[in-house]
Amino acid sequence: MKKILIIGIGPGDPRHVTLEAIEALNRVDVFFVLEKGAVKRDMVALRHEILQRFATGRPHRVVEAPSPPRERTPADYLACVDDLNRDKQAAFERMIVGELGEGQCGGILAWGDPALYDSTIRNVEAIAARNGLEIEVIPGISAIQVLAARHRITLNRIGQSVHITTGRRLAEGWPEAADSVVVMLDGEETYNRFADQDVEIYWGAYLGTQDEILIAGRLKEVVAEINRRRAAARAAKGWIMDTYLMRRV
Amino acid sequence: MKKILIIGIGPGDPRHVTLEAIEALNRVDVFFVLEKGAVKRDMVALRHEILQRFATGRPHRVVEAPSPPRERTPADYLACVDDLNRDKQAAFERMIVGELGEGQCGGILAWGDPALYDSTIRNVEAIAARNGLEIEVIPGISAIQVLAARHRITLNRIGQSVHITTGRRLAEGWPEAADSVVVMLDGEETYNRFADQDVEIYWGAYLGTQDEILIAGRLKEVVAEINRRRAAARAAKGWIMDTYLMRRV
Ligand SMILES: C[S@@+](CC[C@H](N)C(=O)[O-])C[C@H]1O[C@@H](n2cnc3c(N)ncnc32)[C@H](O)[C@@H]1O
Ligand SMILES: C[S@@+](CC[C@H](N)C(=O)[O-])C[C@H]1O[C@@H](n2cnc3c(N)ncnc32)[C@H](O)[C@@H]1O
Repeated sequence: MKKILIIGIGPGDPRHVTLEAIEALNRVDVFFVLEKGAVKRDMVALRHEILQRFATGRPHRVVEAPSPPRERTPADYLACVDDLNRDKQAAFERMIVGELGEGQCGGILAWGDPALYDSTIRNVEAIAARNGLEIEVIPGISAIQVLAARHRITLNRIGQSVHITTGRRLAEGWPEAADSVVVMLDGEETYNRFADQDVEIYWGAYLGTQDEILIAGRLKEVVAEINRRRAAARAAKGWIMDTYLMRRV
Repeated sequence: MKKILIIGIGPGDPRHVTLEAIEALNRVDVFFVLEKGAVKRDMVALRHEILQRFATGRPHRVVEAPSPPRERTPADYLACVDDLNRDKQAAFERMIVGELGEGQCGGILAWGDPALYDSTIRNVEAIAARNGLEIEVIPGISAIQVLAARHRITLNRIGQSVHITTGRRLAEGWPEAADSVVVMLDGEETYNRFADQDVEIYWGAYLGTQDEILIAGRLKEVVAEINRRRAAARAAKGWIMDTYLMRRV
């Protein structure tokens, strides 16, 4: 039986890997990497750094395939995600079927925690259904947790809920029944929609990396600064990853 | 200036600590521990194991205070939490003021991730406001993430939200606008309320420990088994910690 380990590596700082992840890295014969193109060069660099620093216990190979391009402004989000996942799946399947021997252990590094807005588990489960594979998942620190730690806040208020959502969903309005709202995958600065309301925001970009930016305060008072720094950083680096928490005050 | 490190240690498996947490453990002069009483003996044992295995870089002291008792079925939840926090805060404050020297570094181990349903950050911030303290927070793997990893699922469905809440809130009804609902702090088996609906559940108890129990399926079909195993485990060990994810199918 072939085995695949899906290993969460945290969102940018190699020190965020767990001991369990390091142990897993050292059980892997072949790592499968989908190269993400120029804008994600830093993300690939972290993956290589993690392999170099931690996967030192035994020989391993790294097999890379170009990552399928992501359409920028798809008309139909779900359809696009489906297409993207089909392409990713096909790429992983070709690599796993072609490069992993019987009884060998493959490894895939997942950004942050594989359990949050990441298609790896779903893709590998689909491949396993067709080819027979054992799967093990190693949790990792998520960007959300680094956001909270750096701002020294809890995600929840006492006894209250935490609603994790995407920029796209947030654009439909403040989620009902949500107290703290955490937003990932927001390419559109959607927090701006709530800038006229009594809301506090804890915002972070490039969390865990040397370029980390943190801004917090009444949204009204900090929104211009977030927009400005976000645009500047994005222009300077060519890409941005940001996450934020908002709640009504 | 005194400094306090609030260090997330994961929810039960020492291998869930991160390298950042291990580095932090080795910067601490004095660890402050609130003893949690007999039922939490295993939790205290994990803390001691973590100190013994990882805080080996320099000499440190451990200062323990008895944890304030938690009223079992409080009439007023928020008032009770407030009282409990006031007592915890007072205990931490006495220890920090009395036992931590100028320029020294104190450490508090937080179960799971300090950002989720944990009063440590709030308490230490309040103490810092009165006494002047530098605070640093180290994120940890949360029970929720181990739940997802063990069941090999993502917390979210594609492009959908994740709503994290308490058993108490869930008893008020299925949260509006929530797709996946994650429940912590449920002493009442509140999932039973939804057993007549088309819901799937991923349930886990003692996650990350040797006693780990995992059950998943259509709630209708597995609810009796969860109730049975939960009651049996709780009776056998004297306490239980469980977390679950539900979504409509
Ligand atoms: C495809 S999702 C993957 C999330 C990842 N699985 C996790 O647990 O953090 C990508 C989104 O995560 C957030 N993100 C990931 N890494 C980040 C970082 N270092 N700083 C800020 N946000 C980050 C951003 O919201 C980004 O749009
Ligand atoms: C006071 S909250 C603390 C949560 C913790 N900060 C975390 O991030 O996991 C305690 C709740 O967390 C969940 N929990 C903590 N550890 C757990 C474990 N090992 N297995 C299952 N649930 C756990 C249970 O729902 C429990 O009621």
